[in-house]
Amino acid sequence: MKGGALEMGSEVAKKGSAPVNKVAAVVDFFLRIVAIIATLGSAIAMGTTNETLSFFTQFIRFRAKFNDLPMFTFFVVANSIVSAYLVLSLALSIFHIMRTRAHASRILLIFFDTGMLALLTAGASAAAAIVYLAHKGNTRANWFAICQQFNSFCERISGSLIGSFGGIIIFVVLILLSAVTLSRR
Amino acid sequence: MKGGALEMGSEVAKKGSAPVNKVAAVVDFFLRIVAIIATLGSAIAMGTTNETLSFFTQFIRFRAKFNDLPMFTFFVVANSIVSAYLVLSLALSIFHIMRTRAHASRILLIFFDTGMLALLTAGASAAAAIVYLAHKGNTRANWFAICQQFNSFCERISGSLIGSFGGIIIFVVLILLSAVTLSRR
Repeated sequence: MKGGALEMGSEVAKKGSAPVNKVAAVVDFFLRIVAIIATLGSAIAMGTTNETLSFFTQFIRFRAKFNDLPMFTFFVVANSIVSAYLVLSLALSIFHIMRTRAHASRILLIFFDTGMLALLTAGASAAAAIVYLAHKGNTRANWFAICQQFNSFCERISGSLIGSFGGIIIFVVLILLSAVTLSRR
Repeated sequence: MKGGALEMGSEVAKKGSAPVNKVAAVVDFFLRIVAIIATLGSAIAMGTTNETLSFFTQFIRFRAKFNDLPMFTFFVVANSIVSAYLVLSLALSIFHIMRTRAHASRILLIFFDTGMLALLTAGASAAAAIVYLAHKGNTRANWFAICQQFNSFCERISGSLIGSFGGIIIFVVLILLSAVTLSRR
């Protein structure tokens, strides 16, 4: 009798957790869409950055483009890969809305999400390090701040970091959400 | 009868998963110790880096120290925070070896592990961006490679990145391990 009551209790718990898991799966889906917009926006904003300065007094034209610095190229590549992954992961996210009990696919998702979090953070923080140098320069290493000349270039590269850092926060939330759902099965 | 059989089946499954979870918890414990050594080693290697160049022909002495560049300071701080966190997390890891069924503490651990992964990756890749610049320089931005002058300084800062990147890989494995254990309850 006691075993039966326990079993019934766990049955109720299972049924009770299904709607919560469904809500979590829907939130997961929308967070992924927001993250796609953020990372794709970052990649496009950085990838289309260039500025040409023309001086009347001399014939040399100075041009600043994002791929002058390899870290910015890496930033664009990392953001593109992450947003492509996020588009593909939407399929699994929809699958989780329908099948709230699936767990092998959730573990797969946690694994890839963690890898993509690392990739996105690496790209964003390498670019941020260079943006910092461009703004402040470094007198010890004799690296001059280039933002005094390339003003709109600098504003653009600084702004494009925002989407990427937003994406990082969303990934941390996504991983936590998957972990909570996994434990509630 | 059918319900009872099902119940028994799930009981067997629970008993069968306990040793596997114990092994996973022990692996988790040892991976954390390796990660402590790696991140602490990185922090110390970077934090003790300085080089003084003395030229006989002039009275100026050039000195290169890790905190000349704010990204290296961030690297040391990030690695120190992560290794301190890892030491604290050993307590939870030991708790998981004893109580293989605990799940609230595992979710907590996944959350903090993910945050620390992001912090460690940010520190390591910001420092790596500067190490790259120090080696190669950038002709477009007029930033010169400083490694020609500060040879041993550059070797030291390059080497200290290794432990940090090793730590990143360990964190990805730790999160995956926790997710698998959570799903096996």
